[in-house]
Amino acid sequence: MKVFELRDGFGLDALVPGERPDPVPGTGQVLVKVKAVSVNYRDLLVVKGLYNPRLALPLVPFSDGAGEVVAVGPGVSRVKTGDRVAGIFMQGWLAGELTEAMAGTALGGAIDGMLAECVTLHEDGVVPLPEHLSWEEGATLPCAAVTAWHAVIEQGVRPGDTILTQGTGGVSLFALQFARLAGVRVLATSRSDGKLERALQLGASEGINSTTTPEWDRTARERTGGRGVDLVVEVGGAGTLPRSLRAVRTGGCISLIGVLTGTTGEVNPLPAVMKGIRVQGIFVGSREMFERMNRAIALHGLHPVVDRVFPFAEAREALRYMEGGAHFGKIVITL
Amino acid sequence: MKVFELRDGFGLDALVPGERPDPVPGTGQVLVKVKAVSVNYRDLLVVKGLYNPRLALPLVPFSDGAGEVVAVGPGVSRVKTGDRVAGIFMQGWLAGELTEAMAGTALGGAIDGMLAECVTLHEDGVVPLPEHLSWEEGATLPCAAVTAWHAVIEQGVRPGDTILTQGTGGVSLFALQFARLAGVRVLATSRSDGKLERALQLGASEGINSTTTPEWDRTARERTGGRGVDLVVEVGGAGTLPRSLRAVRTGGCISLIGVLTGTTGEVNPLPAVMKGIRVQGIFVGSREMFERMNRAIALHGLHPVVDRVFPFAEAREALRYMEGGAHFGKIVITL
Amino acid sequence: MKVFELRDGFGLDALVPGERPDPVPGTGQVLVKVKAVSVNYRDLLVVKGLYNPRLALPLVPFSDGAGEVVAVGPGVSRVKTGDRVAGIFMQGWLAGELTEAMAGTALGGAIDGMLAECVTLHEDGVVPLPEHLSWEEGATLPCAAVTAWHAVIEQGVRPGDTILTQGTGGVSLFALQFARLAGVRVLATSRSDGKLERALQLGASEGINSTTTPEWDRTARERTGGRGVDLVVEVGGAGTLPRSLRAVRTGGCISLIGVLTGTTGEVNPLPAVMKGIRVQGIFVGSREMFERMNRAIALHGLHPVVDRVFPFAEAREALRYMEGGAHFGKIVITL
Amino acid sequence: MKVFELRDGFGLDALVPGERPDPVPGTGQVLVKVKAVSVNYRDLLVVKGLYNPRLALPLVPFSDGAGEVVAVGPGVSRVKTGDRVAGIFMQGWLAGELTEAMAGTALGGAIDGMLAECVTLHEDGVVPLPEHLSWEEGATLPCAAVTAWHAVIEQGVRPGDTILTQGTGGVSLFALQFARLAGVRVLATSRSDGKLERALQLGASEGINSTTTPEWDRTARERTGGRGVDLVVEVGGAGTLPRSLRAVRTGGCISLIGVLTGTTGEVNPLPAVMKGIRVQGIFVGSREMFERMNRAIALHGLHPVVDRVFPFAEAREALRYMEGGAHFGKIVITL
Repeated sequence: MKVFELRDGFGLDALVPGERPDPVPGTGQVLVKVKAVSVNYRDLLVVKGLYNPRLALPLVPFSDGAGEVVAVGPGVSRVKTGDRVAGIFMQGWLAGELTEAMAGTALGGAIDGMLAECVTLHEDGVVPLPEHLSWEEGATLPCAAVTAWHAVIEQGVRPGDTILTQGTGGVSLFALQFARLAGVRVLATSRSDGKLERALQLGASEGINSTTTPEWDRTARERTGGRGVDLVVEVGGAGTLPRSLRAVRTGGCISLIGVLTGTTGEVNPLPAVMKGIRVQGIFVGSREMFERMNRAIALHGLHPVVDRVFPFAEAREALRYMEGGAHFGKIVITL
Repeated sequence: MKVFELRDGFGLDALVPGERPDPVPGTGQVLVKVKAVSVNYRDLLVVKGLYNPRLALPLVPFSDGAGEVVAVGPGVSRVKTGDRVAGIFMQGWLAGELTEAMAGTALGGAIDGMLAECVTLHEDGVVPLPEHLSWEEGATLPCAAVTAWHAVIEQGVRPGDTILTQGTGGVSLFALQFARLAGVRVLATSRSDGKLERALQLGASEGINSTTTPEWDRTARERTGGRGVDLVVEVGGAGTLPRSLRAVRTGGCISLIGVLTGTTGEVNPLPAVMKGIRVQGIFVGSREMFERMNRAIALHGLHPVVDRVFPFAEAREALRYMEGGAHFGKIVITL
Repeated sequence: MKVFELRDGFGLDALVPGERPDPVPGTGQVLVKVKAVSVNYRDLLVVKGLYNPRLALPLVPFSDGAGEVVAVGPGVSRVKTGDRVAGIFMQGWLAGELTEAMAGTALGGAIDGMLAECVTLHEDGVVPLPEHLSWEEGATLPCAAVTAWHAVIEQGVRPGDTILTQGTGGVSLFALQFARLAGVRVLATSRSDGKLERALQLGASEGINSTTTPEWDRTARERTGGRGVDLVVEVGGAGTLPRSLRAVRTGGCISLIGVLTGTTGEVNPLPAVMKGIRVQGIFVGSREMFERMNRAIALHGLHPVVDRVFPFAEAREALRYMEGGAHFGKIVITL
Repeated sequence: MKVFELRDGFGLDALVPGERPDPVPGTGQVLVKVKAVSVNYRDLLVVKGLYNPRLALPLVPFSDGAGEVVAVGPGVSRVKTGDRVAGIFMQGWLAGELTEAMAGTALGGAIDGMLAECVTLHEDGVVPLPEHLSWEEGATLPCAAVTAWHAVIEQGVRPGDTILTQGTGGVSLFALQFARLAGVRVLATSRSDGKLERALQLGASEGINSTTTPEWDRTARERTGGRGVDLVVEVGGAGTLPRSLRAVRTGGCISLIGVLTGTTGEVNPLPAVMKGIRVQGIFVGSREMFERMNRAIALHGLHPVVDRVFPFAEAREALRYMEGGAHFGKIVITL
């Protein structure tokens, strides 16, 4: 079968096509014929060697994929041939609290990922797709959607709350969509008026252009009657965290997801103390969260925002497109 | 000023008009000119002497009212003259956990209630009304709406969950409306097809006629793929609890609110054990919950369902109308 | 290998010795040489056919056992030969919320249990024993101790809280011990002054003889300054629940575990409403809870209370001894 | 009556004795004859003008005091003359979530504090002292003890958990003591072997000298079998936070309390993401927490660690002594 793999090193050009033997599912495993794969910023970091330089090579990257179960090994009972499934990001995090051991089971990192024609996964490591989703839509769920669900819904937001999202990448748009399902108001920030316009169409109640309004935290406070937002979906990291701490209300929450603006920076922890803020690190989520999310997606017929679909052969172009930052929503590779 | 009061005893005929001196707000108090009052089943029980026969007389009954602040006493800072407010059900439950002392501060029971032209309340005992609500709508919130909010939203429902409501009284319809705001699916039961039709119009995804389908618990399980509902808004009490325990999923929740079907009955607690069910007694809610609820009501422009409005002079007719059970939503008295 | 099994029917006399082929661990499985087994009231019900008459026969009963891993199948990585382990009650409940599917994986019920010389379990279905425990002590943990941990500690008790326990069976004594570890005060009830004396030695702050003080709920309120206890470990069921609802404070919790006094009875749900009580059904617990509990047991060097140890051949006598009700703590069978 | 006040500016020398009229309790207020006052690091910052330079002068500083109720105003029912009470840190935070308005009601900051012979407080703003505590001990509770209780116990620690404390100031020692009550293991860090010795006597299971072991985070991981501690009581701020993020386990919690090592510094938020860590800002706590804490203190007869007691006239010396950093536990001023 065909794969893309990092064979001898890191970098976009080091991601090369390869051939591997067709896998056979062992006891408790399922064989999934991959139909679509989605791209996350983390995949770009992995390929460029910036995520975790100690990753063992060769490695098939990409955590997110959806496909059809075409064979099952002995003892499999949760899924059957013909099921439409997605892999879960950390194959070992089924439910409950994250542990260090579970954190070391992520697809396309600790172990081979989804950028392949076929994969074998343990039956515990897949979830059924909501029926109304295409393969391309289903492939967007494991990392970005579960992260957003965990960051917003599992933090206990309630109808009438206000959240703030940053940018229009996959996580931020899923956060917007899930918040709207939950009756939560969304203030969306972006550096592009065009993207803000689209965010409004998705249900954001207000867009804040963070280029023309660099003090977006002040605006967020104004738009909440001076109170501050209940929750920030923080994808920027050290560069945006100080403003997020000002934008959030006393007693509010910051779901800390990404470090797009950098991993180092001056962060004054004092506001977190004086306002009793909770900063919750979000590392994707468990299968239990994924299943709860899928019930919501199915009930509401929600469609992920797919920006552009690349053919399998153009996997590197998909990464370059992500690097360019022009996307709005998810970038998908179809097989 | 005019009031209705239970002067010498209990019973609908013992609820008589009276005259009391115009109240003057003391330190920390506000004087509210009552514009509308709503009727709860509890008010009917109070008047009939069935709620708590040890209530001290004379008593102005009715917990729920909305009105305008027309004067404030010394030291008042939370509200000001001209504010549109509702009283909170338990004047002493502002936030945090309910205590026995707080439970003894309910309007129209432990202390005089809202069936009066004017009331004085502590400034801590009122909340501002959402702007888009009429007086009649605002008067429906303190008991029924806060109870429903507490029973559904504060229990941590998530989009994609399914709840079951019983009947079409005030609490059940608010539960339906709040659940819909939160992206939650609602199975509504009622003994009337006509009422179910209206519940569907309010957003219930399915109606179950509990007269023609006495095994509504089985239907609820079928409609959730055999899994059971995530939460039951239990207003029936001992008569419906056994079926509710069967209708709810393993690990689910029953918000126990009312005892319309009686306070005694055979209840087998075993299913609660074997399915790990949580049965949560709900006694209205705190001011903090009321304020969170009002934010949701305001954000979504939600309108309570007002069935019928009676003039002040016909307060007893309003109670008799409730006793008849033909209403759908809230019964209100206007002043 | 030797087992005890229900071969042709239910009843203590139907529990007969048998021979089965020595088991071989499959992929992901471990072979455990059983060293000790403990008896739970549930085992007595299973054997007598009162727990679930639809259980498939033949059945090896008993959920709780401890032993040594003597062989591992392919792919096993969590445990290794020589490990001292106990099986988890529900083989499928590893973490997170209980589901119906997980509830159907209990040892000695849905599937063969531990009353055997050897068992094969999935590697996910065992936990390491705290080092300081003997085999007999380790065998007491899976059902009774995890249930008590779940009922008390996982409900969020805090130092300074007061709980009430009923009787001196395994769950109640573990509840007492765990509560004391957590700085929680314990009011213990029992029908025997002698047993109460021993409960006091284990750390109960007060004993209430429920025969001579049938109104133990009133005593519990008095001993808490009229406030009521924070949590009741309810093992009695319908017969004791009404008093437990009176004994618990406003806003308190009843952990509903057992139905020793019967499964049917008049239960008035009104106090649960008016006091905002949470009644939480407890069906043992997850592996994650078991592991947390073991950390506490290990840190504090806690020893379970073992009443009496029977040899394997006298398994039926162990059940009869439990039936007699004279025990204080756990009854164990050694192999 | 005599007070100490910041009359014309900030600085230790600007804290001068003054005379004010004897206060009279208004409606709902109590008059407290102050018996003892304790010193917090925050008081030192307030006096030096480093806490909040916009504080209005003149100001009576110090948040923490205990005393006897010597008179009550009209309408007071929660307390009575003769009661032994402490003021709560934020007079407006009674229960539930912290709000910005509540945060602006702290004694000895937003409003006049306790460094006075008498104070008037609203009856809602005091709590009864546990009977076994002296005035000096009681005066240590409002800020440091409630903060520690909130940081450890209210975060949901369980017996068997391990926490790490930093230094031997008031909050850290209370955290140690409360953790021990709750069956929680404590790793204590300090720059002084002598202080570590005393921490061990208080129940710490291990001391780590952070001068001789600058990589105390590594030691903390080793002492927890490589897993990391469950919770860090972070009083250092930006200077220690990076190590705390390494010391804590995946899924663990950092209670962020103080900024003794500075408010600015490079903090890489990535570990919080990858390990799913919760960083919870702790700004003292509510009266509800205070009352829960007092129940624990009373039940266990716990005594706060009082380092040294100064007479009222030497209030400035008490601050200088704190500045020196030689103390172990609380510094108290007696009246």
